[in-house]
Amino acid sequence: MKEKEFINIIKNTLNSKYIGDDCAYLEDLGIVITQDNLVENIHFSMKYTTPYQLGWKSVMVNISDVCASGAKPKYLTIALSLPKSIDTKFIEEFYKGAKDASKDLKIVGGDITSADKIFISVTAVGETKNRKISSRSNAKVGYKIIVSGEHGNSATGLKILQKTFSSEINKFTKAHLMPDAQRKFSEEIAENITCDYAMMDTSDGLGDALMQIAQASGKTIKVNTNDIPHDKTVNIETVLFGGEDYQLVAAVPSDILDKITNYSIIGQVVEGECGILIDGKFYSNIDDKIFNHFE
Amino acid sequence: MKEKEFINIIKNTLNSKYIGDDCAYLEDLGIVITQDNLVENIHFSMKYTTPYQLGWKSVMVNISDVCASGAKPKYLTIALSLPKSIDTKFIEEFYKGAKDASKDLKIVGGDITSADKIFISVTAVGETKNRKISSRSNAKVGYKIIVSGEHGNSATGLKILQKTFSSEINKFTKAHLMPDAQRKFSEEIAENITCDYAMMDTSDGLGDALMQIAQASGKTIKVNTNDIPHDKTVNIETVLFGGEDYQLVAAVPSDILDKITNYSIIGQVVEGECGILIDGKFYSNIDDKIFNHFE
Repeated sequence: MKEKEFINIIKNTLNSKYIGDDCAYLEDLGIVITQDNLVENIHFSMKYTTPYQLGWKSVMVNISDVCASGAKPKYLTIALSLPKSIDTKFIEEFYKGAKDASKDLKIVGGDITSADKIFISVTAVGETKNRKISSRSNAKVGYKIIVSGEHGNSATGLKILQKTFSSEINKFTKAHLMPDAQRKFSEEIAENITCDYAMMDTSDGLGDALMQIAQASGKTIKVNTNDIPHDKTVNIETVLFGGEDYQLVAAVPSDILDKITNYSIIGQVVEGECGILIDGKFYSNIDDKIFNHFE
Repeated sequence: MKEKEFINIIKNTLNSKYIGDDCAYLEDLGIVITQDNLVENIHFSMKYTTPYQLGWKSVMVNISDVCASGAKPKYLTIALSLPKSIDTKFIEEFYKGAKDASKDLKIVGGDITSADKIFISVTAVGETKNRKISSRSNAKVGYKIIVSGEHGNSATGLKILQKTFSSEINKFTKAHLMPDAQRKFSEEIAENITCDYAMMDTSDGLGDALMQIAQASGKTIKVNTNDIPHDKTVNIETVLFGGEDYQLVAAVPSDILDKITNYSIIGQVVEGECGILIDGKFYSNIDDKIFNHFE
């Protein structure tokens, strides 16, 4: 897998302790930071997103990464590279969407240049004060695996959009075009938990997040798919591997659960080989099930 | 000018006090943050840059923005979107260049995705502790205009590269391919100055930086081109408007000058209409002299 190979080369070249989690935790500054690129016709298509929705989603995927760290999302910068054909209406709608998605976060800067396709890069900064910061390597035997909401809706929404080009917003297309970062779930855990814990967002799929936590923590994560909240019309393969739902998945001790308003227990961390045990079937890797940008 | 028009729309849509300087100053977190995009065949060409040089310059332009704020450059994130044809050697060389340019800064994260052209977005974070942070609106009558070094070399280097495709590194091509952010000049001012001051880097040209400071501060900036350090083979038009030298230009009171090791006084801030007075000729705008990505 080229993407993983590239990341290994970057880690080796930089010899950095920071590369690993979705956010880098800069303890001396009391912040986390994360940055993501969205590229036209790779991550989105203007055939089925409006500029407003694109602005919304561009910032939300980064806010979601900050939520995964447990930090409080505070600031955003947005760097846009745009074709010369883009008009002022696009810019206005994009930033309206970005602003609405940001809610109490502030968009404080960025860049604007030209390009032949739309390139969007967003950086989000979170404050770590009064929050316990997660790491995917922190899952411990006995911890419960919990998720913040339904999985599989975004991938289902994308299929609908690709088939119909309809602008109709329903539960599935909304999950794909205008996801909501799980700020409350993140805040309730990070403000109340006192021990180390693991948390990720499910941007690359629930199965991938579980595998990442299992591998980084050196444990087996056991999951029962019946317990994963999902729409009954969506098949389990999509629920597990669909991606882009921007829900959170966490490995936490049971005693934190009464501080969380909404969650579903889908499994637990057990002793064993690195990997995930789904409905009794063990996977030491799921590379063939994950979308890879470089293949 | 479309770029300025877009920025005005963004300012109006966001109604944000932060948009204006190269870095956003986040006082509550004690940091500044800046983000820039570099797009293949717009900002650079693989015809005359190596992956190592590209990595170097990509981070340096952002370090330069942090230096312009007066903050201490600390952390970087790099988000790369790359064609599928890119090999591991490119990644390794790019990150070696980025690491060498970073010196004591740490590269702590980012993203890697595919694209059909190379798209690079870098975010830099600086710490504001024990530093006085600049603003381009802070120039006051009587302040001296000082610069950190020679102007016009980078634009001259680009012309040489475009003509010769030579990989020979001389003073001019080095200025273009591997600029050096002026950390020491920035540090000496920001750690010692006690009053408000203006500082910018000259990424978009010395003339543009002077105009931005003049307009934001509501003053006239008077400059004598004989005093601008430059190679004698480079014409004054290129010295003033060439861009990408990544030197610093500051408007500061005279009493700080004995704290700065290397500087040249090129002019001063005087009462008068917003604009720049170059060798006795007044300009209220220089839009026709500046490269605009959207035209």
